[in-house]
Amino acid sequence: MADEVVGQEYQGNPGALSPQQARQIFRAGTVAHTSGYSRGYAQANLITLPQEQAFDFLLFAQRNPKPCPLLGVLEAGQVSSELLADGDIRSDIPLYRVYRNGQLDSEVPDVRDVWREDLVSFIIGCSFTFETALLENGVPVEHIAQGKNVPMFRTSIPTYPAGVFSGPMVVSMRPIPAAQVADAVRITSRYPAVHGAPVHVGDPAAIGIQDVNHPDFGEAVDIPAGTIPVFWACGVTPQSVVMESKPEFAICHAPGHMLITDARDLQYQVP
Amino acid sequence: MADEVVGQEYQGNPGALSPQQARQIFRAGTVAHTSGYSRGYAQANLITLPQEQAFDFLLFAQRNPKPCPLLGVLEAGQVSSELLADGDIRSDIPLYRVYRNGQLDSEVPDVRDVWREDLVSFIIGCSFTFETALLENGVPVEHIAQGKNVPMFRTSIPTYPAGVFSGPMVVSMRPIPAAQVADAVRITSRYPAVHGAPVHVGDPAAIGIQDVNHPDFGEAVDIPAGTIPVFWACGVTPQSVVMESKPEFAICHAPGHMLITDARDLQYQVP
Repeated sequence: MADEVVGQEYQGNPGALSPQQARQIFRAGTVAHTSGYSRGYAQANLITLPQEQAFDFLLFAQRNPKPCPLLGVLEAGQVSSELLADGDIRSDIPLYRVYRNGQLDSEVPDVRDVWREDLVSFIIGCSFTFETALLENGVPVEHIAQGKNVPMFRTSIPTYPAGVFSGPMVVSMRPIPAAQVADAVRITSRYPAVHGAPVHVGDPAAIGIQDVNHPDFGEAVDIPAGTIPVFWACGVTPQSVVMESKPEFAICHAPGHMLITDARDLQYQVP
Repeated sequence: MADEVVGQEYQGNPGALSPQQARQIFRAGTVAHTSGYSRGYAQANLITLPQEQAFDFLLFAQRNPKPCPLLGVLEAGQVSSELLADGDIRSDIPLYRVYRNGQLDSEVPDVRDVWREDLVSFIIGCSFTFETALLENGVPVEHIAQGKNVPMFRTSIPTYPAGVFSGPMVVSMRPIPAAQVADAVRITSRYPAVHGAPVHVGDPAAIGIQDVNHPDFGEAVDIPAGTIPVFWACGVTPQSVVMESKPEFAICHAPGHMLITDARDLQYQVP
């Protein structure tokens, strides 16, 4: 793996950038975590695979909409769509990870030099959207308050297999005050395109989590007295399931370095 | 095309049959319109295609969830799933249409003798589910009241193309009393898995419909005074788009002869 990429930093107010401006800045070389960029617009995960695996992955997403909510697909030969108008999926994300045979090969701010005509890109919803909705509705989001990355866990919950892809669900955990668990369920269930309602409320052991203070990914958060751990399907699931199958070639966004889309968060709200 | 298939008729109360019982009866040779069978359970459209077209079709469904809401997919080699427990997709629908090069070849009650190992089956939501919800909420459904098939129209609304598949949207029309249009929108928007909210309310000409009394498919219904024509995306869209591409081989359910699934209608309701 290459050394850590250090790019320019953006000096203005990232929340005020339009998605198109943000993508231009990343295309021009800025490397940054995208949390807080282009407020009100949906950010997304990327998984790019050769056409050969594309049907199986699309089917995996259809069968597992909670961990793998698809916002859009770029067919082989396509590098843009209405989710990234005038954009280029090969350069508009601040940082990419390139995998060969399921192993991380490099971390780069641009993948045009390794791009192939047979690559299909899957744009997958991200929990940033529902966290905004939780905060706006007065439900606290602990890992944000504690300045940490969300804790994520491998579980004993199986996904529905599809072709070459199978494996357990990865979940994210947010401690929610007992009196607001119902609100958290109600609010996130209105966002099925970004993981939707929780998959589990309470007892971590029941879904195979040995120690809720030792996450498999992200960072541990303190669980305040009076809160209940609530678990949502996590976008790390498809990435983990894909790498398990050791695809000959794959590209993903680097964690925290998301695609900023032209879709407003509110667009993904159902009644 | 073969002569019309005349099978046994079911003499009992079809609404009281479990989905599994209904599928057994059809497997054993009964040929019947399925309207009214297994009350409370979702009925579905079938499109079966060779693996070669499967990615493009799955992508078409992902991009066009309103006309093409996927409830499930049977991969090549699979003939059953949790939507039809202990079932067989090749025999459990009362009547099938077999197409060769986009042309109707035969209408048969069983497709086991033409089945191939490379066939992928797409199970697509049907408006029966939301019509039940409309009626239960006191919104009249005119074509049912008038004892007719729902009127359907080709429109000027484009679908999002995917691979080899493209073409205009087909819509179904239901005249709704002006005071209940908002209710009809609210109720059907809670069923995104079965076409969801209307795509158009009012003026048929605005979506390229020349004469609302001459549908392209189904039957004309009287539009009572005080009602507004309301248009929903229709499951005939994917069938029409698929045949337009002249696939070498395809199987669909015969109109009105649906797959009865183990999923309850209510399971497809969002908050």
